[in-house]
Amino acid sequence: MQPVVLAVAITGSVPRKKDNPAVPVTPAEQIESTHEAFEAGASLVHIHVRNPDETPSSDPALFAQVQEGVRRHCPGMIIQFSTGGRGRDPSTRGNALELRPDMASLSTGSVNFPTIVYENPAALVVELGTKMQANRIRPEIEIFDLSHIHAARRLIDQGLMDERPHVQIVMGIRNALPAREHLLDLMLGELRRQIPNATWTAAGIGVAQSPVVDWALARNADGVR
Amino acid sequence: MQPVVLAVAITGSVPRKKDNPAVPVTPAEQIESTHEAFEAGASLVHIHVRNPDETPSSDPALFAQVQEGVRRHCPGMIIQFSTGGRGRDPSTRGNALELRPDMASLSTGSVNFPTIVYENPAALVVELGTKMQANRIRPEIEIFDLSHIHAARRLIDQGLMDERPHVQIVMGIRNALPAREHLLDLMLGELRRQIPNATWTAAGIGVAQSPVVDWALARNADGVR
Ligand SMILES: [Zn+2]
Ligand SMILES: [Zn+2]
Ligand SMILES: [Zn+2]
Ligand SMILES: [Zn+2]
Repeated sequence: MQPVVLAVAITGSVPRKKDNPAVPVTPAEQIESTHEAFEAGASLVHIHVRNPDETPSSDPALFAQVQEGVRRHCPGMIIQFSTGGRGRDPSTRGNALELRPDMASLSTGSVNFPTIVYENPAALVVELGTKMQANRIRPEIEIFDLSHIHAARRLIDQGLMDERPHVQIVMGIRNALPAREHLLDLMLGELRRQIPNATWTAAGIGVAQSPVVDWALARNADGVR
Repeated sequence: MQPVVLAVAITGSVPRKKDNPAVPVTPAEQIESTHEAFEAGASLVHIHVRNPDETPSSDPALFAQVQEGVRRHCPGMIIQFSTGGRGRDPSTRGNALELRPDMASLSTGSVNFPTIVYENPAALVVELGTKMQANRIRPEIEIFDLSHIHAARRLIDQGLMDERPHVQIVMGIRNALPAREHLLDLMLGELRRQIPNATWTAAGIGVAQSPVVDWALARNADGVR
């Protein structure tokens, strides 16, 4: 088997302490949770930060604290900031990019989520991509539907991203793309046609996590989460 | 060649008289434009109505005028109301369904459009589908991305639609699905897996109209627009 990058998403934007008391919410909790995952073999951390009331935050001061702590506790670990939108003011989603994390997530299209429309209008995608490029941050392209692959291709054509982005195909969110093995093949086929040099991974949400990891590994994904 | 339904979308939601003086805007203009298309062989009309300032409207009185005129001038023509969202208050998009047109369009998911996010949140889709079913209106499912096929399948599973809806795959809107022949095959493959009994058509926007009609006819579409 080829080596894969093991990524950990310690917090996300949805779960609260009342859902799971183990969810790390403060920067100190997030640093220690990342440290544990690092010792267990994870080499990439995907970071969302939270306000004191646990709602999603875009505050660069919080991102800076987690970044600094992870650098100290987990030498060499790849640090990826989320620019994801749930519960965050769109105009602030890129605020922490000036901290120059190694990577940042970039969703390239809009799609229905369980109770909301996950809005990533084209102008915002270009704005975030421009900021990542200016700060030499490697994007992880988040793909929730077929057209999002073509939106990523357009970023390359516009000179905002190189020909070898890292791409994550996300499945199993209610009202978005279901977690089905043939859909992963279909999405991968289109990814290879449009962006043949992309590295890739796939993520399943909730109960879909474990099967999607299996499907991704069986197809030689470059990473799993 | 098998017979196909020739559909005409006389007005749409975007063009204004300043873009093209021939765009029919008043109910009288819309009725006459439909009549001309009917005489040229069209058997289905897709109707958007406009306010006096040409902006999109949801006013049932306007829909009623066009419906009544088309019935009188074009006997037997299939009348389809748009419930599409551009420029319309989401809460009013279904207001004209009580007029019981033969068909109504129903977009089952959200996607990026040229300058906006075309928002069709899941709850609104269910609300419109419920209203169509209550008024015995046949939906034309508008598909702008892959996940929208699965959203249509869920309406069937929820009992809001029968197993044989009419489906239109829309391509060539900037920031949504590009007009590419292999993408039509990919979408049709998934449509047949999820809703094998659906009738279907494909529509290309702008310069994509003519090639998409050709691709659709080559694949035995049930209609073209
Ligand atoms: Zn995330
Ligand atoms: Zn530690
Ligand atoms: Zn329309
Ligand atoms: Zn007439």
